[in-house]
Amino acid sequence: MSTTYAMNMTSPFRKEKDLLGEALVPGEAYYGIQTHRATQNFDLSGVRLSHFPQLVRALAMVKLAAARANNQLGLLAESKTKAIEAAVAKLLEGYCHDQFVVDMVQGGAGTSTNMNANEVIANIALEHLGYPKGEYQHLHPNNDVNMSQSTNDAYPTAVRLSILLSHGDLVNALASLQQAFLKKADEFNHILKMGRTQLQDAVPMTLGQEFNSFATTLGEDIDRVAGLTELLKEVNLGGTAIGTGINTDPEYAKLAVDQLSAISGIQFKSATDLVEASSDMGAFVLFSSMLKRLAVKLSKISNDLRLLSMGPRCGLNEINLPAQQPGSSIMPGKINPVIPEAVNQVAYQVIGNDLAVTMAAEAGQLQLNAMEPLIAYNVLESIRMLSRAMHMLETRCITGITANEEHCQSMVDQSIGSITAVSPYIGYENATRIAKEALASGRGVLELIREEELLQPDVLDEILKPENMIRPQRWLR
Amino acid sequence: MSTTYAMNMTSPFRKEKDLLGEALVPGEAYYGIQTHRATQNFDLSGVRLSHFPQLVRALAMVKLAAARANNQLGLLAESKTKAIEAAVAKLLEGYCHDQFVVDMVQGGAGTSTNMNANEVIANIALEHLGYPKGEYQHLHPNNDVNMSQSTNDAYPTAVRLSILLSHGDLVNALASLQQAFLKKADEFNHILKMGRTQLQDAVPMTLGQEFNSFATTLGEDIDRVAGLTELLKEVNLGGTAIGTGINTDPEYAKLAVDQLSAISGIQFKSATDLVEASSDMGAFVLFSSMLKRLAVKLSKISNDLRLLSMGPRCGLNEINLPAQQPGSSIMPGKINPVIPEAVNQVAYQVIGNDLAVTMAAEAGQLQLNAMEPLIAYNVLESIRMLSRAMHMLETRCITGITANEEHCQSMVDQSIGSITAVSPYIGYENATRIAKEALASGRGVLELIREEELLQPDVLDEILKPENMIRPQRWLR
Amino acid sequence: MSTTYAMNMTSPFRKEKDLLGEALVPGEAYYGIQTHRATQNFDLSGVRLSHFPQLVRALAMVKLAAARANNQLGLLAESKTKAIEAAVAKLLEGYCHDQFVVDMVQGGAGTSTNMNANEVIANIALEHLGYPKGEYQHLHPNNDVNMSQSTNDAYPTAVRLSILLSHGDLVNALASLQQAFLKKADEFNHILKMGRTQLQDAVPMTLGQEFNSFATTLGEDIDRVAGLTELLKEVNLGGTAIGTGINTDPEYAKLAVDQLSAISGIQFKSATDLVEASSDMGAFVLFSSMLKRLAVKLSKISNDLRLLSMGPRCGLNEINLPAQQPGSSIMPGKINPVIPEAVNQVAYQVIGNDLAVTMAAEAGQLQLNAMEPLIAYNVLESIRMLSRAMHMLETRCITGITANEEHCQSMVDQSIGSITAVSPYIGYENATRIAKEALASGRGVLELIREEELLQPDVLDEILKPENMIRPQRWLR
Amino acid sequence: MSTTYAMNMTSPFRKEKDLLGEALVPGEAYYGIQTHRATQNFDLSGVRLSHFPQLVRALAMVKLAAARANNQLGLLAESKTKAIEAAVAKLLEGYCHDQFVVDMVQGGAGTSTNMNANEVIANIALEHLGYPKGEYQHLHPNNDVNMSQSTNDAYPTAVRLSILLSHGDLVNALASLQQAFLKKADEFNHILKMGRTQLQDAVPMTLGQEFNSFATTLGEDIDRVAGLTELLKEVNLGGTAIGTGINTDPEYAKLAVDQLSAISGIQFKSATDLVEASSDMGAFVLFSSMLKRLAVKLSKISNDLRLLSMGPRCGLNEINLPAQQPGSSIMPGKINPVIPEAVNQVAYQVIGNDLAVTMAAEAGQLQLNAMEPLIAYNVLESIRMLSRAMHMLETRCITGITANEEHCQSMVDQSIGSITAVSPYIGYENATRIAKEALASGRGVLELIREEELLQPDVLDEILKPENMIRPQRWLR
Repeated sequence: MSTTYAMNMTSPFRKEKDLLGEALVPGEAYYGIQTHRATQNFDLSGVRLSHFPQLVRALAMVKLAAARANNQLGLLAESKTKAIEAAVAKLLEGYCHDQFVVDMVQGGAGTSTNMNANEVIANIALEHLGYPKGEYQHLHPNNDVNMSQSTNDAYPTAVRLSILLSHGDLVNALASLQQAFLKKADEFNHILKMGRTQLQDAVPMTLGQEFNSFATTLGEDIDRVAGLTELLKEVNLGGTAIGTGINTDPEYAKLAVDQLSAISGIQFKSATDLVEASSDMGAFVLFSSMLKRLAVKLSKISNDLRLLSMGPRCGLNEINLPAQQPGSSIMPGKINPVIPEAVNQVAYQVIGNDLAVTMAAEAGQLQLNAMEPLIAYNVLESIRMLSRAMHMLETRCITGITANEEHCQSMVDQSIGSITAVSPYIGYENATRIAKEALASGRGVLELIREEELLQPDVLDEILKPENMIRPQRWLR
Repeated sequence: MSTTYAMNMTSPFRKEKDLLGEALVPGEAYYGIQTHRATQNFDLSGVRLSHFPQLVRALAMVKLAAARANNQLGLLAESKTKAIEAAVAKLLEGYCHDQFVVDMVQGGAGTSTNMNANEVIANIALEHLGYPKGEYQHLHPNNDVNMSQSTNDAYPTAVRLSILLSHGDLVNALASLQQAFLKKADEFNHILKMGRTQLQDAVPMTLGQEFNSFATTLGEDIDRVAGLTELLKEVNLGGTAIGTGINTDPEYAKLAVDQLSAISGIQFKSATDLVEASSDMGAFVLFSSMLKRLAVKLSKISNDLRLLSMGPRCGLNEINLPAQQPGSSIMPGKINPVIPEAVNQVAYQVIGNDLAVTMAAEAGQLQLNAMEPLIAYNVLESIRMLSRAMHMLETRCITGITANEEHCQSMVDQSIGSITAVSPYIGYENATRIAKEALASGRGVLELIREEELLQPDVLDEILKPENMIRPQRWLR
Repeated sequence: MSTTYAMNMTSPFRKEKDLLGEALVPGEAYYGIQTHRATQNFDLSGVRLSHFPQLVRALAMVKLAAARANNQLGLLAESKTKAIEAAVAKLLEGYCHDQFVVDMVQGGAGTSTNMNANEVIANIALEHLGYPKGEYQHLHPNNDVNMSQSTNDAYPTAVRLSILLSHGDLVNALASLQQAFLKKADEFNHILKMGRTQLQDAVPMTLGQEFNSFATTLGEDIDRVAGLTELLKEVNLGGTAIGTGINTDPEYAKLAVDQLSAISGIQFKSATDLVEASSDMGAFVLFSSMLKRLAVKLSKISNDLRLLSMGPRCGLNEINLPAQQPGSSIMPGKINPVIPEAVNQVAYQVIGNDLAVTMAAEAGQLQLNAMEPLIAYNVLESIRMLSRAMHMLETRCITGITANEEHCQSMVDQSIGSITAVSPYIGYENATRIAKEALASGRGVLELIREEELLQPDVLDEILKPENMIRPQRWLR
Repeated sequence: MSTTYAMNMTSPFRKEKDLLGEALVPGEAYYGIQTHRATQNFDLSGVRLSHFPQLVRALAMVKLAAARANNQLGLLAESKTKAIEAAVAKLLEGYCHDQFVVDMVQGGAGTSTNMNANEVIANIALEHLGYPKGEYQHLHPNNDVNMSQSTNDAYPTAVRLSILLSHGDLVNALASLQQAFLKKADEFNHILKMGRTQLQDAVPMTLGQEFNSFATTLGEDIDRVAGLTELLKEVNLGGTAIGTGINTDPEYAKLAVDQLSAISGIQFKSATDLVEASSDMGAFVLFSSMLKRLAVKLSKISNDLRLLSMGPRCGLNEINLPAQQPGSSIMPGKINPVIPEAVNQVAYQVIGNDLAVTMAAEAGQLQLNAMEPLIAYNVLESIRMLSRAMHMLETRCITGITANEEHCQSMVDQSIGSITAVSPYIGYENATRIAKEALASGRGVLELIREEELLQPDVLDEILKPENMIRPQRWLR
């Protein structure tokens, strides 16, 4: 790959060359011919690498780690190393991200992404060294920036790092949402309501217990996401083309991984079997599945919020979601649970994305998985959508929820669920008979028990105290 | 493949031979060595071919069609043809299905299934001719029963036919369920209730309209299933190994397909491109997707039935599902919507099965799809589970549903949904203001409109007549 | 909704009002307060309505159809109708699409999309009438533009129309790709090669037959896509909120649908049961499944192309895909099948999207499916990605494929597949024995048959003529 | 629930009673009326509880744990406790499993399963006490066997336990398969072959490295499966109906969980939030996803085995899979990779099952997930199929694989992949040029490098030593 400048230096294009021949690249572009070809080849999702800044940063960090390791081994000159460091610094500061122009959905197992990074870093470095862009004889995208690397180790390592850099947003949004639920749980702790199983009236609980369970279920996933990110810290950097480490010094892999840990502040380790690590997508499959699990939980919570707020007059109407926008173009005054509905949809998308990840992972063949770009795209996209959806749910819904305390209480009062609490005392069959009678006659369960004098009045009162029905209770004699 | 009888004729085994050498087969078995090997190799799902009688029948019909075509071409002797006819007749009458012992999930693209059929038919035919089982020199599983065929055309043709033979049950269950909904729609036609969009009170409708919509949505799928079965009537019989028709007479394909149409009573046609037809699973993908669509509809209906019957005292409680079993081991008197819940689960399984079909279809390579057995298994299984689930839903739920008419009416009365009907007369903004006020104050919408004298009392009355709110209405002036 | 102008008319904002109160909208914006709120609420996918121009056009057409129908019924004044017509014309010409700013993934069942359209059309129309934006007393987004409509009928109708408007690109790309395969089939018609089943050598065929099968399988989907679009032509326009047609004239539905047919040039028809049609997503489920089927086929074809071009020296190497970019950052000279790989990934995404559609469809409740925006997004996105992927596959891969004719022939010559052609003449068991011997000894099948004098030499020659092995052949005696 | 004996004691039926009235149960049946009703209601999958013996055992253990805890609390009499212990012992020894007759796919959130266990245990216990079956006044399915329990805590606990009891088979099959790959890796360690990325020739490796990577990737999953089973050890026993612990003593939960740990030998712990734990399916979702990940890996390995054994004469032909059955009904001598094909299909089924689990988990509502039976079914079924498939793969395929060493070596010799190894010495552009020339001319890469004298002959020789190309290598100067 080299550059011949057109005679007229004011030309808006420069000529570059590769295996396939020459092509014109925009003169001001920091990317080069291989990136250019990739943009010609792939116009599929319309979503470019730059859409995920953490991916750009991760690529830059990997390139820096490799350069430093090569420098330590005496393979990369000090001046070139410094220039690459300067270029990477620019990218980490957020400059030139617009030069990462390749479509996220691409063939070539990430080669176009890797070359986009190599070329942009080479050209920024060249400018830093005082050379015009494209004068690769001074610093070469492949020979220097990509030294000791293959797409097949640099790219998967960068993808892993990009997920690690992104997932903080996810965990923060998740933790913040959990806190919002906890706060509401506290606020609603005194509100008695009917618990429901299989959508049928069951036994009493507090609205606080219900909201607390939302907090608990999300809290578990904070730990779980953190646990699974460990899998992503095992990288194949140094494995190069197929994991055999061809074209690397025996010490390179360790040095490069240590450098990457130092640069990123994340403790990476070398995969023990780099051949396996070159083609295995298992860590992504499980991490994506974890995002799916979170999506399932968020969807279940959203469904519950929508059920509990059914109404305003012909539904459960236990809680009110804050109004965020008029609900209907035809029905005046209608307010809809638009925020949970949007969360549901994000959840379904994440579940769909997980399937795309699964299929892409299964399609790996022999020494590489050529479908990794789709995996990277879907995992990063799912992280982003989930993070945004949880932030939206917290700030535009949960924090503004109010409870209809009296209505909740009145439903408990009229229910027949309290029969369960007396069942151990009067026996399952007596209880069944009374419940049946209550249902048929429309009368109250309590009334019927009293009438039959099946229990001492004071014992009955004690059993049916709300505070006794919402937690375990010592046997009364 | 030939048979050497052990000297002692009372031996419970006979020896057969194939490409891999000799093996013992149970002496009374109608299947032979290849089937035997397949049972040794595959013990995966535990579900055997005989689990799907229509698959056995379909295989038998294909074999008969081939035999008759070969006979017409002078390739298969009259006596052999007659013997095969006799054997097939036995299978069609339901005999010997227990001889189809291979696991539905099997490698080999259906070869084991095809050989199971070839061997069973050969041995029944041999007995018919007066020979002991295994004396294949008189009538051979491959040379005679499989004449002019390959697994690669006989098996896909049989799978298609088996689906066509099975889908009648599905359509019958669907049509019967539709009728049950129509009957209920008629029964509930006079019951006014609130319609709900996004789980929020919307505008009035009748319960009859709601049940009618269930009937309509299922009715559409009767047509749609029928429409898509057409795709399955295009077969590759005569294509043999890879669709080039090697080892067949130029007239064979047409003759065999015509015979199959005559035997089955289903009008089959030859695929125009037999090479394509040998590997393409498109018809199964779309048919399975159609089953998925039906599953989605049934799941939606089941969800609705469970929502509408929430209660008995703390939910919508518009309808009552008939009690089928006690609902709880701890809560006396609890009745749960167990039937729709089971339908939901069948629907999820069918959707999961459809994914298995999709992945198997995508995995086809070059001239064949080796994963067709999994496709056959899942499509047949989904048909069966859906048929049973619909029958269960009809007979154990829909026909026994009753409505809580007064409760439905009282919810309409207290709702603010009627504001929509007056909105065109008083304007969206006035209507919005009044709805808001009603919500805040707990007062009735009607009351507020009357108070503000926004409409003539008689016009208002006319607008709000139930029969006028549940259908289009000419502008009142 | 009304507008109070800030005193200082140069203010960059205008104030608008809705059910929830007042808010500032950018002064130059054609959208209004409800759109504004939606952009505040939903920042999820980052993909806006304007990303799909056919959706904007479809919304505009539906609004025009409704306006004209209302005008015919004497409900909408001539001047307002004209103004709406002018506004719609602008949108159809491509103006103001950037005003469709709501995120495709949104809660509210499409209300925000519908209101975005209502507001933009109202404001363009107001300007046309000489009024400033926001002066809705002269022409109102709800009362006028949305007259006789609900989101719940206008939006689903527009989504259907947008798919119908978009799928032409899909069909064109598909038809063009099919032609490219046909051309190659013709070009490769004389090239003999080994057919393979289960990845094992089977029997000979021509490369032309193989490419023709790709054309055939895609050709089938042209018809099938067309067939399924019929389902999308059944619309619920006129059903308004829940399909009962509340707030419409009895003649409105027919008039509006006829107008829509006239405007769009597509023959729509009213769903027979508008209540059912309001919540049913069945047409989308099946259409999306059809896209999935096409994706499965494209993926299978891409897999085959990658298999056939394995090499250059250590694989099948039957065909060469045109080089589109250097294949490796470390392995010089490596060329990879990047185009089919990208197609595979698009296919997996489409299959994932189909799952999102399935789940969204299943989540519909009672009288509406609140998840329709996700359905619309995924179907439109899948259409777009598939169209682009097929165009890419055609122009950057198929048209440039060349064949390695000699290598193909030499593999046929050394194979043992020809044993199949002689099997009917010498019997399956003899043939098996010879094949086994050939494999073990490394000798040629032909040689062994000749040695054993199992067939007359001239008969053997006739059987094994290439032209006889790739099609049915009359029995030689 | 009580029993009235028919006058004629020889009647083959006994009458039992429940909430819905009376019904006849087969006289010899250990199950009772509620189980009977469930078998009437649900005939869907045809797969009964008894199909999964570990589920029966798990149910028995949970019942025993509860009985002992109740006894410790003085709630269950010593004699009843002993009788229950005796009944459970029978079940653990494998007796009476045929009494678990309910369909795995059932409505009611597992109530039918729980009642099946309660009734069978009660009746065995009654016999132990000397009473006839059905004389529940002496020991009652609900009051005694189900004491302090609800289906909603007993059932999920039992399902978790059943998975824990089953997954040993999975891990054993996995570990054994891993060992088989390791053995082959050792055996093939000296065989040089071409590595391939994106199906194109890349750089050399050993066949041992390739097989070792299969072992590594499976080995990782042994740890991972074990890690995720921890999630299943958190149980909601003691939460009863909705997690509030209604009808339990404050000490019951701890006692019961401790008893379960003692009985099963598995260290269980109480979920910290029993309300959350009653409805959350997160542990199943993640565990099922882990099974999916294993399926993806097995499918990838199977795909690779099928690719590497393509042939015998027209494919890669690097390895030979052992023949397990004749491959074709028409093509004599054909051997197909039937075992890996079957593994692929099992993998697709497991992925489909995982989707069913996902959808069922998402469908949970409010205080319970009514779809848990489908989750239990699919997880247990996937475990079983995967275990069997891995055993099959090991014993019928991996252990018999042989390598075609010479052919592997000859492909390395003729490849141009060695250019990569010299690229760092001659530069990426020189290397690219030479690779291109080699491809175009058909000449050897080595030859061209020598001709151009780009490297010292001894350096070149050193670089290209096989042992140097398959691992990192110090820079040669």
